[in-house]
Amino acid sequence: RIFNALGKAGISVSIISQGSSERGIGFVVHSKDAKRAKSTLEQEFKPEFETRDVDYIRIKDDLGIVSIIGQKLGDFHRSYSSLIKNGIVPVLINSSVTGDNISLLLEEKDIHKALNVVHGKIFGVSTNINLALFGKGLVGSTLISQILKNKDEIEKRRGVKLSIFALADSKRLLLCEEGISHNWQKQLSEKGIANYTINDVVQFARKHHLENLIAVDNTASAGFVQNYIPLVENGFDLVSSNKIANTLDFGFYRKLREKLKQREKTYLYETNVGAGLPLVDTIRLMHHSGENITGIKGVFSGSLSYIFNHFSEEDRPFSAILREAVEKGFTEPDPREDLSGNDVARKLLILARELDLENEFEDVTVENLIPETLQHIDKEQFLNRIDELDPVFEEIKKAQKPGHVLRYVGELSGDLQQDKGVLTVKLISVPRDSSLGQVRESDSIFEIFTDSYGDRPLVIQGAGAGAEVTARGVFGDILRLTEKAN
Amino acid sequence: RIFNALGKAGISVSIISQGSSERGIGFVVHSKDAKRAKSTLEQEFKPEFETRDVDYIRIKDDLGIVSIIGQKLGDFHRSYSSLIKNGIVPVLINSSVTGDNISLLLEEKDIHKALNVVHGKIFGVSTNINLALFGKGLVGSTLISQILKNKDEIEKRRGVKLSIFALADSKRLLLCEEGISHNWQKQLSEKGIANYTINDVVQFARKHHLENLIAVDNTASAGFVQNYIPLVENGFDLVSSNKIANTLDFGFYRKLREKLKQREKTYLYETNVGAGLPLVDTIRLMHHSGENITGIKGVFSGSLSYIFNHFSEEDRPFSAILREAVEKGFTEPDPREDLSGNDVARKLLILARELDLENEFEDVTVENLIPETLQHIDKEQFLNRIDELDPVFEEIKKAQKPGHVLRYVGELSGDLQQDKGVLTVKLISVPRDSSLGQVRESDSIFEIFTDSYGDRPLVIQGAGAGAEVTARGVFGDILRLTEKAN
Repeated sequence: RIFNALGKAGISVSIISQGSSERGIGFVVHSKDAKRAKSTLEQEFKPEFETRDVDYIRIKDDLGIVSIIGQKLGDFHRSYSSLIKNGIVPVLINSSVTGDNISLLLEEKDIHKALNVVHGKIFGVSTNINLALFGKGLVGSTLISQILKNKDEIEKRRGVKLSIFALADSKRLLLCEEGISHNWQKQLSEKGIANYTINDVVQFARKHHLENLIAVDNTASAGFVQNYIPLVENGFDLVSSNKIANTLDFGFYRKLREKLKQREKTYLYETNVGAGLPLVDTIRLMHHSGENITGIKGVFSGSLSYIFNHFSEEDRPFSAILREAVEKGFTEPDPREDLSGNDVARKLLILARELDLENEFEDVTVENLIPETLQHIDKEQFLNRIDELDPVFEEIKKAQKPGHVLRYVGELSGDLQQDKGVLTVKLISVPRDSSLGQVRESDSIFEIFTDSYGDRPLVIQGAGAGAEVTARGVFGDILRLTEKAN
Repeated sequence: RIFNALGKAGISVSIISQGSSERGIGFVVHSKDAKRAKSTLEQEFKPEFETRDVDYIRIKDDLGIVSIIGQKLGDFHRSYSSLIKNGIVPVLINSSVTGDNISLLLEEKDIHKALNVVHGKIFGVSTNINLALFGKGLVGSTLISQILKNKDEIEKRRGVKLSIFALADSKRLLLCEEGISHNWQKQLSEKGIANYTINDVVQFARKHHLENLIAVDNTASAGFVQNYIPLVENGFDLVSSNKIANTLDFGFYRKLREKLKQREKTYLYETNVGAGLPLVDTIRLMHHSGENITGIKGVFSGSLSYIFNHFSEEDRPFSAILREAVEKGFTEPDPREDLSGNDVARKLLILARELDLENEFEDVTVENLIPETLQHIDKEQFLNRIDELDPVFEEIKKAQKPGHVLRYVGELSGDLQQDKGVLTVKLISVPRDSSLGQVRESDSIFEIFTDSYGDRPLVIQGAGAGAEVTARGVFGDILRLTEKAN
């Protein structure tokens, strides 16, 4: 009766859909015919409205159709998943038994982006990955260089097209639909938007129908971390070299993960510990496979590694080596940020939480290497008074057994089957020919003790800091995500 | 006219689907009505048949409908992708605009499996992962223990239900729909099928509608590798501790990867080199992110590590240490398999190919540690004559500079931007306090040199052999795959 009535009224019907429950039927007519179709049917089904056999007839406006001719249902799942991941939910999916055609009824605003997504999936056009980069310090700018240098090769070999559509420092935001290029420094200072918010990035991505969004945090900002959940809610995966989000209270840690799970988004942060060294993923995978990790011990900080490696082997005062490390840029501008042990404590906490331990930052016992009297003065004063550290460390050095050296280590111990582990950060004396004693220059070392490995731990060692290796690690996380999108 | 005619004939129509092209229409009627519906319509459209405005009316038999009530299109992509990954292609997908219902028209043979898959995805019921394990030697049986011990915890924490539905050694195949349990040894010998082929496993999985199939190869068999491509073609992902598939000719290497790509299947083999050490994935990811890997060097073999670590430090003849290693089970029963260097060469080749180098096994320059005269005698003879090795190695040891030790290393060098790298396996003398010189017991060590890491390589060290760590590494690969399925 529906189609009879519409036919008589001269209204042509395109997509028709009735499910197996026969509790309703949907169909598509041209928007100019919509109101007439509704009134025609209201007329036709007048008796049924009265008897309540028909409940309502509704018009849904502002729709468009994407038809994929020759598309088999055996292949369409990739396009469909990609649409959903990009926040596009079709109003209706229609497949035909006669021929391999699939029609998508979409909201008009989604049509353009949907075409991009579907084209990419079907025609083997590269998958576009759209990156929003926050932070253009050493790691951030090195990452930009690495991406710009390698993107063509990655597109050729992996079919993945990386594009940096947003780039921001703390002051300005550069937005660029087709992706930034080598002149980004100039562009940012000339065309960057001041006083931006994260919403400007989200809106730009939406307006330009950008798919496969990844937000990359190379800041060290505590404030920026508050954007993580809004970003996830707006369809971004997250990659971060910033450690803060993983060391806030456990409530936030869990909340972020719940949000990620709910939105089917991923958060990767391999560089939070040991820069480019494959540590977080290794520990995570061993833990998930039921390997009983019984302890982790290591030199977590590149700057403190440098300081104590040189101080242990050379006959120079501690202050001379510290000054050298500051001058070489191996420490933070205020070296107390390293010597306080807080950075090591944060890294240790991140690894502990990877083992499902619910420790808080306050649970970490940290040996602060700065004497109380030097802790609260300003930076310049401190740098003028670092000679005062010399007798302290000279005494510690002399008190060692022969053939021993000093190392500043983080250690996770205790019964790791409980809710919390024992987290300790301290200066220790170890035999020179032990693994920890063998570390040189500014290398980090991580010893992972497990049931399977027994007495001899799995050891991962190498540059655990530095812009090149950290940026490369962040790049690795981005590629892990692109493998999921592809 | 269609529905008018059918209505008059008293035939009720369930799912209706017409695409936007209006080039045909499909609908579902009860199978008892099918022939009558066809003849009714042929009668109704007789004139159009004559004018060729209607081409044909076709019945598709043996179908069933799965209706998912309350399913939104924004969530259905996971069920749909999972169906496709499990080889189930719906005949028709029907979504309704009125209410959140999705109907799947399926071939009858797929209905049962489709229900399993969809239930799992929708109701948060655990994702079932069905494993076929080949090989029950040390690694294989340890893996079985690890899986049986951890499966409940993994199901609880990760929502993934691991089940070993097939288990085979070279002689027998045990098939078990609900998964094997702790008495598998007995079951295999009592109920195992002799003279099985891979097709028995494939057919069993099909018959019982098993989804998310993973084949795990813990054999050392060259013959079994011929099953890889048929397994991929039948919907299996692959995990392997068996090195052979990756060291056959490059043509096979490439063919397998093309097949995997075509079928959207994955092949993981982290344990091929360094057992559970995170080597393959680390190198792969660095390479893909454009990191210029300039060389890899290391002690690849746990047994040769043990032999030369002890020989270098102790004043005992080579044969005494070799006998000890054989007795402790650190070597193959015929230790020449280790001493030939072929095992190291295979591992080196696998890493080289991970860097997109197209080397063949024959390209590896291998220093065989067995003198020509002892290479072709039988095992017992060889074991009786190993004293003949003593003067050879004593001379090599004495010719070293002071403070040096012997290490049997694999090394990848040359211009790795070319098609082929330089692969060398040889006995070298290194300073005792170098990274290679520091290796102890049967540990492996891998030094990865890259542009970013500069002079000081990324070092990964630890037990590079042994059933526990190898099985755990295989388990890790299985979990990587389950993350994709989930």
